[in-house]
Amino acid sequence: MKTLLKHAHVLTMDDQWTTFENGYVLTEDGRILEVGSGTMPEADRVVDCRGGILLPGFVNLHCHASMVPFRTMGDDCPDRLRRFLFPLENEALTPELVYLGAMYGIGEMLLSGTTTFVDMYYFEDEVARACLETGMRGFLGETVISQKTPDSESDEEGLKLTEAFLRKYAGSERIHPIVAPHGTTTVSEAALRACEALSEKYGALLTLHASEMDYEIAHFLEMGTTPMAYLERLGLLSDRFLAAHCIHLMEEDMTMMAMRRVRIAHCIGSNTKAGKGIAPIRDAVALGIPFGFGTDGPSSGNTLSIFDQMRLFAVTQKTYYHDRSLFPAREIVRAATRGGAECLHMEHTLGQIAPGFAADLQVVSTDAAQMFPLYNPYSALVYSANASDVDCVMADGKLVVEHHELTQWRLPALREELRQAMSGFYQAAEKYREII
Amino acid sequence: MKTLLKHAHVLTMDDQWTTFENGYVLTEDGRILEVGSGTMPEADRVVDCRGGILLPGFVNLHCHASMVPFRTMGDDCPDRLRRFLFPLENEALTPELVYLGAMYGIGEMLLSGTTTFVDMYYFEDEVARACLETGMRGFLGETVISQKTPDSESDEEGLKLTEAFLRKYAGSERIHPIVAPHGTTTVSEAALRACEALSEKYGALLTLHASEMDYEIAHFLEMGTTPMAYLERLGLLSDRFLAAHCIHLMEEDMTMMAMRRVRIAHCIGSNTKAGKGIAPIRDAVALGIPFGFGTDGPSSGNTLSIFDQMRLFAVTQKTYYHDRSLFPAREIVRAATRGGAECLHMEHTLGQIAPGFAADLQVVSTDAAQMFPLYNPYSALVYSANASDVDCVMADGKLVVEHHELTQWRLPALREELRQAMSGFYQAAEKYREII
Repeated sequence: MKTLLKHAHVLTMDDQWTTFENGYVLTEDGRILEVGSGTMPEADRVVDCRGGILLPGFVNLHCHASMVPFRTMGDDCPDRLRRFLFPLENEALTPELVYLGAMYGIGEMLLSGTTTFVDMYYFEDEVARACLETGMRGFLGETVISQKTPDSESDEEGLKLTEAFLRKYAGSERIHPIVAPHGTTTVSEAALRACEALSEKYGALLTLHASEMDYEIAHFLEMGTTPMAYLERLGLLSDRFLAAHCIHLMEEDMTMMAMRRVRIAHCIGSNTKAGKGIAPIRDAVALGIPFGFGTDGPSSGNTLSIFDQMRLFAVTQKTYYHDRSLFPAREIVRAATRGGAECLHMEHTLGQIAPGFAADLQVVSTDAAQMFPLYNPYSALVYSANASDVDCVMADGKLVVEHHELTQWRLPALREELRQAMSGFYQAAEKYREII
Repeated sequence: MKTLLKHAHVLTMDDQWTTFENGYVLTEDGRILEVGSGTMPEADRVVDCRGGILLPGFVNLHCHASMVPFRTMGDDCPDRLRRFLFPLENEALTPELVYLGAMYGIGEMLLSGTTTFVDMYYFEDEVARACLETGMRGFLGETVISQKTPDSESDEEGLKLTEAFLRKYAGSERIHPIVAPHGTTTVSEAALRACEALSEKYGALLTLHASEMDYEIAHFLEMGTTPMAYLERLGLLSDRFLAAHCIHLMEEDMTMMAMRRVRIAHCIGSNTKAGKGIAPIRDAVALGIPFGFGTDGPSSGNTLSIFDQMRLFAVTQKTYYHDRSLFPAREIVRAATRGGAECLHMEHTLGQIAPGFAADLQVVSTDAAQMFPLYNPYSALVYSANASDVDCVMADGKLVVEHHELTQWRLPALREELRQAMSGFYQAAEKYREII
């Protein structure tokens, strides 16, 4: 079946920044067949984009989608990870909550134009199930951590879960299993090495939280090193390594990362909300390090919207480097699409509108007050647009969002189901009432 | 006529942070009569808020609403003010564009929960006309600047326009005429003194851009002083003075500002998008300086949404001071409502939900994906909500927004009218095509 998206302001995101003001895109079997303007080809189904901006679906490089139940809990509380997040996860997290949270989070991401995401959490099989039931593309990893978790007693168990997951989803079309050790100080050296061995054996991406926490930096500084130099010593730095956060990077860290072709999942919303700092992305990019955006989980971010990341990225980099001209809007839209695809080695399939690329597309309506005038559509996407402006989303060739609503399931019904499933969670949270 | 807003999560913003989970607000003749929960009073009209968050309308402390035609033009271009904004204004601005731009900007603000705004521009009478035709409350001033403008040849003419404006709207209910010299380096010393004399004579607020530009700071540094110390020497610092931006403040500046009871219109979206810097609001607040948020104009901000300012404020202050616990969400919502009212000496009328206060209210829907769960409603407003979540707005007792749409005029029709009126503007802009 051929689908034609017509009457759109198409941003192809190709090397020449080609755009079509009254353009169309033709898709079939999950692929893009044709893009252009003028005489339109025949199709079985036609979607009128009503002048909206048509661009590739966003890539979200770092998420814990199932953490929806934690959103707005103790947002301004220092050291919340150790004070109530870890304990509450161990006390109240269930496979059902992970599944429903993932369905909710995936719905939220599709509604905001994201069609590919990287996720690490517990009961990750439930996240994969949610992905398979929707059109979402997932790079998913079971968290490996050297402490008790909701679904394992030790990092050894976590490693076993990881390997089983890598095998189960090998060759899957939309689920890319990955290796996901938690962080540089929360996973033992032996377990980190074992993670790298799995990543190499299965040719799978490896992602972990790196150079994020003050206590992490202090820990390595005391040993006269940095988190990145430590990971290099352990052999983790490679082009399979997607480093999340990377707030506190020394110049030598970046030189090493560039040499090893490491990629950065930049989570500016989460990092700044926590007052942690601003990653030196300008300098990383100057060295040729690929990067894209991550929302982090809904209790960190707090939205799963890449629009929020684009705007926060623009204003923080320009301010940090005191340079208005730094990262013009179109480069930021590029990072949110092609940049993310490059970080996942998917640049030949995702992130551009061109024949042969995956039909992962979004249409951003220009109806909202702040979307006029449209002198520069990239500017409108970065400085004005919100998740709510996403009118239509095609994921893997399927129309998963139409007229700002999910086509496959209803969010209000899912919210009610999740709310009911959260009764035990809310009860467990009561004991942290004072700090959250 | 009595109107009852029921079934709302009411945030009163009073001294005790009183909230009502299933609450109501009763209004009559533009005033709040009653707020509470439980048995509801009789009313002529009932609005069901469907569990939405009901809070005071926002106060926008700095805007040039009519600059809608400039939005997305050269956003990433350094020194755009002098390179194309000033010239283009002088070439292409007309009273009609100012009026239509103000109607559009006011519509955009009402749709995002703002019910009071401070504005300075040219043909300001047209902005007042737009205010009077809507429910918006405006603190409006004709820009005085020592150069040619679209509506005056000199600052002397600007001063005459200002005094005429002060007289025309004296005693007006919703239009508060103010004095608005442009900036510390763009207005002559004599004209600045004349502005202060008008402000004192009419008891009117005075606002100007201060400590915003790099070249401004360099200019005063060369003379061994600061913009704020210069304004103090000219006698401008008083509790009638609302200083916009204030990015680059020395400690002595702040001490002086606190002593003179100066107020700050903090424009974080505009300041960071331009890479200018982050105002030291934590330190200003510690000295007792009142502050609130300003969006700046639609070509600076780029949205007129106070939600965007709240989120950007949270993440920039926390990051600047490296302190997650700084400015908890509820204090930020307070700054956007009561804080803004205090800056305008309207704290006994605006910014709280209590009997006798103005019926300037907004209902923020919790339907959007990112508005669940609602463990902390202030957090949801600061970290998740967007303009598009505003369901219903009451301004001066009138329902001006219902079901996310303006009740008095239609934005799409206005957009079309504005687009047609902009033909000469677009033509004039062509010559700057290379830099924008």
